[in-house]
Amino acid sequence: MFEFDVQHREGRARVGQFLTPRGTVTTPMFMPVGTQGTVKGLSPQELTDIRSQMILANTYHLMLRPGEGLVEQHGGLPGFTGYPGPFLTDSGGFQVMSLGHLRKITEQGVVFKSHVDGRQIDLTPERSIQVQEALGADVIMAFDECPPFPAERDYIQRSLERTVRWLERCLSVKSRPDQALFAIVQGGIHPDLRDQSIALTLPFETPGFAIGGLAVGESKAEMYPAVAHTAAQLPEAKPRYLMGVGHPEDLVAGIALGVDMFDCVYPTRTGRFGYALTDRGRLNMNSSAPRTDLGPLDPQCDCYACRHYSRAYLAHLVRAEEMLGPRMLSLHNLRYLHRLVEQARVQIVAGTFHTWARNWALQYFAGTIPEWFSEALDAGAAPVGR
Amino acid sequence: MFEFDVQHREGRARVGQFLTPRGTVTTPMFMPVGTQGTVKGLSPQELTDIRSQMILANTYHLMLRPGEGLVEQHGGLPGFTGYPGPFLTDSGGFQVMSLGHLRKITEQGVVFKSHVDGRQIDLTPERSIQVQEALGADVIMAFDECPPFPAERDYIQRSLERTVRWLERCLSVKSRPDQALFAIVQGGIHPDLRDQSIALTLPFETPGFAIGGLAVGESKAEMYPAVAHTAAQLPEAKPRYLMGVGHPEDLVAGIALGVDMFDCVYPTRTGRFGYALTDRGRLNMNSSAPRTDLGPLDPQCDCYACRHYSRAYLAHLVRAEEMLGPRMLSLHNLRYLHRLVEQARVQIVAGTFHTWARNWALQYFAGTIPEWFSEALDAGAAPVGR
Repeated sequence: MFEFDVQHREGRARVGQFLTPRGTVTTPMFMPVGTQGTVKGLSPQELTDIRSQMILANTYHLMLRPGEGLVEQHGGLPGFTGYPGPFLTDSGGFQVMSLGHLRKITEQGVVFKSHVDGRQIDLTPERSIQVQEALGADVIMAFDECPPFPAERDYIQRSLERTVRWLERCLSVKSRPDQALFAIVQGGIHPDLRDQSIALTLPFETPGFAIGGLAVGESKAEMYPAVAHTAAQLPEAKPRYLMGVGHPEDLVAGIALGVDMFDCVYPTRTGRFGYALTDRGRLNMNSSAPRTDLGPLDPQCDCYACRHYSRAYLAHLVRAEEMLGPRMLSLHNLRYLHRLVEQARVQIVAGTFHTWARNWALQYFAGTIPEWFSEALDAGAAPVGR
Repeated sequence: MFEFDVQHREGRARVGQFLTPRGTVTTPMFMPVGTQGTVKGLSPQELTDIRSQMILANTYHLMLRPGEGLVEQHGGLPGFTGYPGPFLTDSGGFQVMSLGHLRKITEQGVVFKSHVDGRQIDLTPERSIQVQEALGADVIMAFDECPPFPAERDYIQRSLERTVRWLERCLSVKSRPDQALFAIVQGGIHPDLRDQSIALTLPFETPGFAIGGLAVGESKAEMYPAVAHTAAQLPEAKPRYLMGVGHPEDLVAGIALGVDMFDCVYPTRTGRFGYALTDRGRLNMNSSAPRTDLGPLDPQCDCYACRHYSRAYLAHLVRAEEMLGPRMLSLHNLRYLHRLVEQARVQIVAGTFHTWARNWALQYFAGTIPEWFSEALDAGAAPVGR
């Protein structure tokens, strides 16, 4: 169980198979986010149709409502949500820490006020694992501290040390052998702090490692060197998960740097706001051009929306504030990201990933590829040799 | 084309086949309402899955936004909405008249202000047919005047006469032989005014007749005698459509009285408000009982929601204001009404409709069947003999 088999490589990019209790998933992969036990607006059947592989659910939201006990009574997330495939749950830490003045962090854990009913709640490493065991995902995450950006170097250092102590506490209470616990590397955008976190974290030999603490406000030019630096030092034989990251350009750059797993609310959230992801960038369905366009959103896409509807119809739904609009744009956007990683895998297997990635970016960025992206591709081109 | 074949009868209730350019539909049937070119929240695939037969679309909404020209460029409603089956459009009259102080009715037609952009718009019988021809539904409706309830007898009389003059104008401009225009009988709840309207309307020999002007505020005890009185005088060999009516009890009572077609926003609207239709009445998913109920919404139902979800999960979606909640309750509620008419058809074929209807009502009304319902069943038990 939880074997990870890297089957193809091109530079640092790789294609792998990750074995979970609910099936084998092929990496690189993007995980749709089902915050409250549903990927917003979509059914499990649709997630299967667009070839989602693993769904992320949020411990923080589910422990508050409906409570992990009810999910457990359904046999865990698959029984509760009707999605039969693999799940991953976060630890709740990131969301609790985002509450700002509503929470207090100590060595013991985090005390916060519920956004649902104002109750005061303690979330500790032990409690996070207890909740995640009740939710029953295939992959569960260590309870970590994710400093905001910017943060004092000193605070990041103390915090990454605490994250390791919390990891130890998580592992000591973890009881289900059918769940893989992934450790999380912190350290902000500081290479030496990332090194410290890596040195302290790798000895735990968890079945996978996550790169945490990024995409929290820093620029992509600040973020990608940290991704490159961290991913290069993570074990070749374990999956690497870049947490909370998932714009199209992030998937391509992250894959180049050897990242295997991504998640982000972006495709569904931007869909609800009326935007469609395409190879030519993000299309605003609230603008006037799509309103009279009888062609599909994306002629290359095989999603339900692209096979059945014109841009004009989808723009009409958005304008008329019809529920089917956000639903179909969310579906398309997720399928767009799944297709993007599927294409990346095909290109890695063929040894043409870097050529493809540059051509994709030329079109996506309309001719002007940003420096951070080129640098990420360049960094990924040379194998690290671990 | 537009042949209607009554194949089975029990009292006044009947099972028929209605031939339209986009396929044969079996009556009695309930039509989901797709006001703005979408049954709120649902895809065409889902409508097919729950065995919807004909979708209603609203001329008023579509002429204002996106405009009938755009729908026509898509080859009409099937191309625009992606639903490949038969459609019916209303005339726009009912909705324009509901605008109250924003509209003015004259012999020529109705002048109103658009709720979208405040433009002043003329809707006449001629314009309604022009728009409905562009929308391209299989069945289109005559532009009629639907008086509010209560209204002066005198006004209802003048209005039903005007409705006949408008019907004449509709028929004189109608140009598409692949669309059936249904005339609408008015007359409020007054038997003699209904008789007048019937006498003036039947000679036009349209391929179907609608019973209009009901469910506008009168009680069921006032409404059903008018349905019984009108339906009994409509031709046996033409479909009868009771407009804007479609609570579960209305379908059973209406079918008993010989009605073949129904439409109503109720199943989707009440679904969006968190209510589920069942044989035991309407279930409030906002209440506390479903929150811990691991059983399905309705063990007899074959809809996606009942096959995949517990009541507890659906109640969680409603409470968490997740889009999937209204979507799944709308789906279930439509399937509930489709199953109800499917059961009624089976019972009519078997000659057991009245026994079934009484047993259904005993459970649905929790033991106390209202008088109007029993009277409707009684009236429907004896054939009219036309």
